[in-house]
Amino acid sequence: MRCLLAADRYEKGAGVARPFFAVSFANIRMNIGKRYWAIAEGYIPPYSHGPAPQMTSHEAVCILNAGDHPAHIEITLYYETKDPVGPYRFEIAPRRSRHLRFNNFDDPETIAPDTPFSSVIVSDVPIVVQHTRLDSRQAENALLSTIAFAGEQ
Amino acid sequence: MRCLLAADRYEKGAGVARPFFAVSFANIRMNIGKRYWAIAEGYIPPYSHGPAPQMTSHEAVCILNAGDHPAHIEITLYYETKDPVGPYRFEIAPRRSRHLRFNNFDDPETIAPDTPFSSVIVSDVPIVVQHTRLDSRQAENALLSTIAFAGEQ
Amino acid sequence: MRCLLAADRYEKGAGVARPFFAVSFANIRMNIGKRYWAIAEGYIPPYSHGPAPQMTSHEAVCILNAGDHPAHIEITLYYETKDPVGPYRFEIAPRRSRHLRFNNFDDPETIAPDTPFSSVIVSDVPIVVQHTRLDSRQAENALLSTIAFAGEQ
Amino acid sequence: MRCLLAADRYEKGAGVARPFFAVSFANIRMNIGKRYWAIAEGYIPPYSHGPAPQMTSHEAVCILNAGDHPAHIEITLYYETKDPVGPYRFEIAPRRSRHLRFNNFDDPETIAPDTPFSSVIVSDVPIVVQHTRLDSRQAENALLSTIAFAGEQ
Repeated sequence: MRCLLAADRYEKGAGVARPFFAVSFANIRMNIGKRYWAIAEGYIPPYSHGPAPQMTSHEAVCILNAGDHPAHIEITLYYETKDPVGPYRFEIAPRRSRHLRFNNFDDPETIAPDTPFSSVIVSDVPIVVQHTRLDSRQAENALLSTIAFAGEQ
Repeated sequence: MRCLLAADRYEKGAGVARPFFAVSFANIRMNIGKRYWAIAEGYIPPYSHGPAPQMTSHEAVCILNAGDHPAHIEITLYYETKDPVGPYRFEIAPRRSRHLRFNNFDDPETIAPDTPFSSVIVSDVPIVVQHTRLDSRQAENALLSTIAFAGEQ
Repeated sequence: MRCLLAADRYEKGAGVARPFFAVSFANIRMNIGKRYWAIAEGYIPPYSHGPAPQMTSHEAVCILNAGDHPAHIEITLYYETKDPVGPYRFEIAPRRSRHLRFNNFDDPETIAPDTPFSSVIVSDVPIVVQHTRLDSRQAENALLSTIAFAGEQ
Repeated sequence: MRCLLAADRYEKGAGVARPFFAVSFANIRMNIGKRYWAIAEGYIPPYSHGPAPQMTSHEAVCILNAGDHPAHIEITLYYETKDPVGPYRFEIAPRRSRHLRFNNFDDPETIAPDTPFSSVIVSDVPIVVQHTRLDSRQAENALLSTIAFAGEQ
């Protein structure tokens, strides 16, 4: 299908690119992403340097809902030495991004700093999930980020 | 198919590797990558330390068009509290790399620093997309990078 | 199937989201992840700055077992100039996370610092694997992280 | 198939785990990884702080060949303003890891520092590829890493 579209585009020349894209975007808004995600790494650095909130050490999950329906999201946290906690519930409006900080999670409970965890993110519509940490425990901050693991269910 | 090629290679011995590779490369130039990508994390650090432009804090999307056709790319940005903005349009020549800095986007509008966003990248031919940030808000820079999420449409 | 569920959800309205999620979670606990993973990068920084153990330079593999069965995991290390070493064996209880530091591996042997390696992680049930390094060789720590490569066997 | 094996394992109890794994590893050594990879981001920082070679700013591609056959690898670099350069050829012995620094590439030509590029990695057998950068342009180093994009050919 992809090859067909591409070939079609080239036969007709660049002038066709715009309507071609318009169709693609409509399609993407409905579909881009997955409904099941996991982040194996999780850790809230216990202290920080620099001005809050920007430079507060934080563990974040960035979520894109590019679709036309609200995303109802449930995040469950898995720990090394206790049972899972959750779900933490969030709603993301259609065509919106949200950068959630685990530091701010408080229902059903807050997350202890300096405690390793993992998380599973479930949505009722496709979303895209990325994990980012800003660690400012020392005077200069460090960053990490990765697209989360997308489950196949 | 892959197994068949590999097995075939070993039957014939290492001497066959070169033409085998030549064929592979022709195939890759046409196909490597996807046409739909998303980056859930997006943030332009509001200030910097160190000599510009190298050490200017920046959010970048690195794109490879290894194919034989120009890539017509449209990037749409999704925000937390306003409607999507875009498309931002770029063309990448065949067999070329481009490292685009969100900091420099200006049509249809510039991107506010210190504002979370996500992005969707669409191309009319397969490309490979990677997200990188250099954060030099503090005296020493921090880096993050991840291959973007490749949609399946 | 995914589209069907989503469509179904919207016909019935948001009130259906909870039982719908309950079903999803039961499904995830059984399935999220893969059984074969690889991390091509591996390196234990040979020295550190800052208070141990938090700021000790370390190479970590974070593993989520969201399932209902214990995960029996075997990690094999591949080196540049010697034969593979392993398996290093670990068990992760059901619905638990573990953040393993390669620095602490000692059976069948400890891992030499300042020595490049790669690793393959195998589990008898699906898991999610993420690779993280904290490098505090210099006064300020640096971080990297990426979801590992999930094999398809 | 995966579910069948897992179920089978639990019926028989933990004692079966070892032969079960032995079979898995034989399978992995033949198959884990892909033959076509791409890294969209590429940049050799033009200067460094700290003792060489450890702290020399570098751009690295880490490759795992967990298989039983040597991997013949060809890397082609794509630039923003000139034609692709390559292939750079490497061989990785069976069951070995290699951490290659782009800084050291010299045939067909060296790679200019401070110049954006992308790369495509092709192997005649399955490999796993990860991209890592150590940037020590400033006094404290920064790190980034991501599993490369695996093509589907």
